Amino acid sequence: MSISFTDIAAASDRISGIAHRTPVLTSATVNRRARAEVFFKCENFQRSGSFKFRGAYNALAQLSEEQRKQGVLAYSSGNHAQALALAGQIMHAPVTIVMPSDAPAVKQTATKEYGATIVFYDRTTQKREDIAQTILAERQLTLIPPFDCAPVIAGQGTAAKELIEEVGDLDVLLVCVGGGGLISGSAIAAKTLSPNCEVIGVEPKRADDATRSFNTGTLQTVENPTTIADGARSRSLGQLTFPLILKYVDDMVTVSDAAIARSMFFLWERLKIVVEPTGALAATALLEGIVSFPDARIGVIISGGNVDIKEAGKLFSKATAKEKYQPRRPLAQELS
Amino acid sequence: MSISFTDIAAASDRISGIAHRTPVLTSATVNRRARAEVFFKCENFQRSGSFKFRGAYNALAQLSEEQRKQGVLAYSSGNHAQALALAGQIMHAPVTIVMPSDAPAVKQTATKEYGATIVFYDRTTQKREDIAQTILAERQLTLIPPFDCAPVIAGQGTAAKELIEEVGDLDVLLVCVGGGGLISGSAIAAKTLSPNCEVIGVEPKRADDATRSFNTGTLQTVENPTTIADGARSRSLGQLTFPLILKYVDDMVTVSDAAIARSMFFLWERLKIVVEPTGALAATALLEGIVSFPDARIGVIISGGNVDIKEAGKLFSKATAKEKYQPRRPLAQELS
Repeated sequence: MSISFTDIAAASDRISGIAHRTPVLTSATVNRRARAEVFFKCENFQRSGSFKFRGAYNALAQLSEEQRKQGVLAYSSGNHAQALALAGQIMHAPVTIVMPSDAPAVKQTATKEYGATIVFYDRTTQKREDIAQTILAERQLTLIPPFDCAPVIAGQGTAAKELIEEVGDLDVLLVCVGGGGLISGSAIAAKTLSPNCEVIGVEPKRADDATRSFNTGTLQTVENPTTIADGARSRSLGQLTFPLILKYVDDMVTVSDAAIARSMFFLWERLKIVVEPTGALAATALLEGIVSFPDARIGVIISGGNVDIKEAGKLFSKATAKEKYQPRRPLAQELS
Repeated sequence: MSISFTDIAAASDRISGIAHRTPVLTSATVNRRARAEVFFKCENFQRSGSFKFRGAYNALAQLSEEQRKQGVLAYSSGNHAQALALAGQIMHAPVTIVMPSDAPAVKQTATKEYGATIVFYDRTTQKREDIAQTILAERQLTLIPPFDCAPVIAGQGTAAKELIEEVGDLDVLLVCVGGGGLISGSAIAAKTLSPNCEVIGVEPKRADDATRSFNTGTLQTVENPTTIADGARSRSLGQLTFPLILKYVDDMVTVSDAAIARSMFFLWERLKIVVEPTGALAATALLEGIVSFPDARIGVIISGGNVDIKEAGKLFSKATAKEKYQPRRPLAQELS
């Protein structure tokens, strides 16, 4: 099942007037530091706090009225769950989220606020797939996967489409990679609208399965990675996303957790935007000089902003305690 | 010396392509909470981190080439100083900032980064006005006041102009008040572009001089107020801004420091934007139900985002420790 730009354009029509057309921010400080012209597509301002709303809404919009009435299910305690809960609320589709019983209270609250039903499971004794399969069968719900799903991928591609339509041709597009839904859709959009644009994926060093998969051409996995970029902890790319990444993505790089925390702090302090660790991944590669494209026009997707504000304060203290925070030069060596 | 919409339109042309046309954010959560349609004009994303860049640049642009070459001066350790320093850097005008020797290191650094020269004075033994007058005379510099200055007021009015041009007619516009530059310009712009728009100023309870001046018709002062909204600590309105406020502003309200801290936290957590205490003033009146306009179209100016990120974390812990944070209903009584 292939995905083309036509699917992204159709998704764009479906979400129009419902998803936010998120702003693109620029910063003279960033441009000087990167020696390039940088455009931040701020999906942290998207409804539900991340780009995930685009894909979730697009998927839900393509179900039959009957399927929506029956309800949908996701197993996730992250941004996809919140996005689907909100999309369901808007489209009057009951949403069930399967979540470990020890999921952070803040995520439980957000999901409930959007009116979803949470089914808890015990991570130590139960598998979420088993719980989900049982509920799906019993209640005749439709599963909406977080990334390995054509309508979800097409929906995620609308962010890059909007970015390029707004700012014009790009030389480079930097996108974070977890399960690969965002970068698959983004790469298809970029290669269609700005054919010479290089698309580069950015992953945490501690969850580098996609980079290894990309480099070897064989699907690699990672088990329970500890990276602070919780949106990029997925076990592997998907059956749909891996081939799309091999076909459309030009390169993959990795960044350390220390570097993520530093650039997250920079984005809060200088761009005045609240970004979660995964949301800062793509920017980190640029701000820390892991990639450098002098004089290029560079798009950077800021993927989300769902983070515990007070916990982030602790993270910043840790990130900046070791060294007095200094803007680092492009191509400087990464610290850890 | 009167200021008209023509001056604001001219300022708009001058800053075009140099100041950011800042984004307008909306939030379904905020709309539900305020039972209205709310548009946040995000001047925290403005260059130098606050709306002050608009006025500083507009003032500098209207000096003669000779005056700019000779240099300009401001006495301020706040956003006006940073804004003027940046405007001077862009226009190749030397900028001198008179600052107390105990000004926060972060503000000294920011001002220096924009290439300004800092002259320190001892707050306990010297008056900044005396220092400034001496330097002005010796070096033949031009003083750029932070608010009581026609080109500065006209420049600040461009933010409201952009907001109304982008979203259309407003019923209400909420603006923070310190020395009154922003609200004076905003009120002129609003009354011209959207004549039925009520303009309401918001001040900290602990620095309520403008509210008392507005209510009594006589200029009132406040001495060294302790509010966390440091941008609103100015001693009084100015000779230009007070009459403009009496003429164009419809009402003034005050908010407690506890309320400011709560709504600041809300803006960070839900809107994903980094806002300083003064920047959250106008939003606080709405989010805390101090004002309520059911079904109205309400513009809110978020004036700036220059805040120590780590210090803010402490503020939030304090603000939310007393009560588990709960969205408060419109018209709920203010706590302290």
